[in-house]
Amino acid sequence: MKIALLGFGTVGSGLPALIADNQEKLAALLDETISISKVLVRSEEKAAQLRQAGHPWDFVTSIEAILNDDTISIVVELMGRIEPAKTYISQALAAGKSVVTANKDLLALHGAELQKLAQKNKVALYYEAAVAGGIPILRTLANSFASDKVTRLLGIINGTSNFMLTKMMEEGWTYKKALETAQLLGYAESDPTNDVEGIDAVYKLALLSEFAFGMTISPSQIKHQGIPTIQQADVEIANQLGYVIKLVGEIVEVSSGIFAEVSPTFLPASHPLASVKGVMNAVYLDSIGMGASMFYGAGAGQNPTATSVLADIVRIVKRFKEQTLGKSFNEYKRATRLAESSEVLNKYYFSVETPDSTGQFLRLVQLFTAVNVSFEQVLQQKGDGQRAVVGIICHKISQTQLASLETKLAKEDDFNLLNYFKVVEEN
Amino acid sequence: MKIALLGFGTVGSGLPALIADNQEKLAALLDETISISKVLVRSEEKAAQLRQAGHPWDFVTSIEAILNDDTISIVVELMGRIEPAKTYISQALAAGKSVVTANKDLLALHGAELQKLAQKNKVALYYEAAVAGGIPILRTLANSFASDKVTRLLGIINGTSNFMLTKMMEEGWTYKKALETAQLLGYAESDPTNDVEGIDAVYKLALLSEFAFGMTISPSQIKHQGIPTIQQADVEIANQLGYVIKLVGEIVEVSSGIFAEVSPTFLPASHPLASVKGVMNAVYLDSIGMGASMFYGAGAGQNPTATSVLADIVRIVKRFKEQTLGKSFNEYKRATRLAESSEVLNKYYFSVETPDSTGQFLRLVQLFTAVNVSFEQVLQQKGDGQRAVVGIICHKISQTQLASLETKLAKEDDFNLLNYFKVVEEN
Repeated sequence: MKIALLGFGTVGSGLPALIADNQEKLAALLDETISISKVLVRSEEKAAQLRQAGHPWDFVTSIEAILNDDTISIVVELMGRIEPAKTYISQALAAGKSVVTANKDLLALHGAELQKLAQKNKVALYYEAAVAGGIPILRTLANSFASDKVTRLLGIINGTSNFMLTKMMEEGWTYKKALETAQLLGYAESDPTNDVEGIDAVYKLALLSEFAFGMTISPSQIKHQGIPTIQQADVEIANQLGYVIKLVGEIVEVSSGIFAEVSPTFLPASHPLASVKGVMNAVYLDSIGMGASMFYGAGAGQNPTATSVLADIVRIVKRFKEQTLGKSFNEYKRATRLAESSEVLNKYYFSVETPDSTGQFLRLVQLFTAVNVSFEQVLQQKGDGQRAVVGIICHKISQTQLASLETKLAKEDDFNLLNYFKVVEEN
Repeated sequence: MKIALLGFGTVGSGLPALIADNQEKLAALLDETISISKVLVRSEEKAAQLRQAGHPWDFVTSIEAILNDDTISIVVELMGRIEPAKTYISQALAAGKSVVTANKDLLALHGAELQKLAQKNKVALYYEAAVAGGIPILRTLANSFASDKVTRLLGIINGTSNFMLTKMMEEGWTYKKALETAQLLGYAESDPTNDVEGIDAVYKLALLSEFAFGMTISPSQIKHQGIPTIQQADVEIANQLGYVIKLVGEIVEVSSGIFAEVSPTFLPASHPLASVKGVMNAVYLDSIGMGASMFYGAGAGQNPTATSVLADIVRIVKRFKEQTLGKSFNEYKRATRLAESSEVLNKYYFSVETPDSTGQFLRLVQLFTAVNVSFEQVLQQKGDGQRAVVGIICHKISQTQLASLETKLAKEDDFNLLNYFKVVEEN
């Protein structure tokens, strides 16, 4: 079974070694050898360099060399970004080749269109590595949850931000120090926006929505809030009240439909997701059948991502032999219905700054009570004599109530809403 | 697609409701309805009772009524024990029916034979629910780890003992109180031997070995040590040194082969398995591709187990339509090689009782040093003036060294080896 690679970066260059390492097992499972034949790179210079470095594959610079090669059955796209990846994948599918990709941005934006093209040409389009590289969550949702109904999904699906938050929570690092270290270690890019603002997690959440809830939501329909506003005061309050702050992607289904958002979240220290540290990822599910379950592993990295890509390749080779290639990766599809704001209920943590003077606390309680928001836990830290910061965890409120509270507080000169984060309850 | 149930206990009686709850999703995925037709029960009285209770299925008391019914394609065995389950499953497979079962004892002892029979008759034999009911670990190993090589597996795969150990660690309960409460809550049977001695975990570990390492080991080849010997002193030392005690099933592969055992184990408090509490289960894997990963969920219970059974049924219906029914659940098979004792290296915790007198500690150190075992952490608790208990964690030693140390200590009148437990290292 011959494979072509589009791109030869970290993951692509890790694939050959992984195939070699697993040769014995692959041969036993497949009764067939998998081999890389052509590799598309962006220039002749690059191709010459790679040949000179001793790489044995046929490096090409035009996609046609791959599209017109009938010996190639599987194309693995590892270039990233939207174009030319989208065009190349479309052409490969149209040429009757199955495609494996880890391109979450492309899939979140154009997955449905590409999936249709795959179906039409009776070939496979698999992308396990697109969400949490080292966790086989998409295939698990497609297969093992076929008999179950997921009601809520919580995911730590961005390793960079989780690394930073782990350092901030456990070692008291500032956001700035955590970011600089993440950049130094190569976890964060020089422009860290996608990771720290939750945008990367939004794309992954869009893909998870298809597999877990059968509903297509576009990234623009997913609310997101990042981690740069998290203050050391928030970290201290979380620690004192028995919580851990994580950047969590959540999808929940209520009777009117699904609600999805990525936001800093207070998790009880005993919650299974709270022990997911550093760059590790995890997806936690509540479902009517299984109850609670969690899938934990590496979020990215050469080996984990290449392993997921290779698992997709193995599946395609098997399907090829069984002549069932045309099966969609995800067969669970429902009409998308978005939840009414009034139906999405959560506890929230609020951090409010106020002048440290008599009567202010009473006024704050009155403000919250006016929009029917009641306190569950309150912690006022010792202030500097001038300003005090009050940490409040309220009982469950709707998105609608949350919005009115925000508006109400914004109108008050002497209350400054520094932050509000969702609070996940104990199981 | 018509199904027959053998047995109508907790799981069997939960299945119809689960099928009903998931009707919409199942119809979308399968384009076919799944329905239970006949149910085998042990007596006419039982059948009459169930009919009178309003259950609409055709209750029968002889297996022939199911074997000879050509409309039935899938037989779900939920009776447990070896016989008559083994005979009925064999007959069903021979009659060209696919079988789903959760019978771990039967599979651990006779799985290979039954699997061969399924292959010969080109039907499926699936048993996801046999290991950790609510964790889709077998299918994940078969599919997503097809491209990876597992080097070590650690599993908390017995909910009863994990519930007891959680209470002993977190609330200081004695073993006796923990057992009585587990029995009261229905987690432990009146004879708790299988759960507390690690025997139940041994059977599950035997099945995991097939999927994770491609090797068949019989339960009798798996060492097991139970939790009844754990003392409050061990719990206190573990807590003080930053460990959690869990009953862990481990399979590790070294160059000479695999080594499997179930034993009380010291896990670093920060290890992902350490946060698996109460009756929950988890399987933690080290693999060359994915690195570390963990799969967490309910270990048993009506809904989780029935959901796994239903996932197997869904897979069979799909395979039936694709005409690929004859595929084995697990296609990874290697010749079994058991590890040499000298190659299996672990840290150990020892708890040694000794007279509280001058020079005893020195002698203890000399004894350990004589067999080349060096200390990593030592904690001597304040004794009663007469006897002292010393907790020792040593550097890595082989199974061979462990055995000589045990022999050596047994010969010494004034040292009493109270307990020794494996210690898992930080990742």
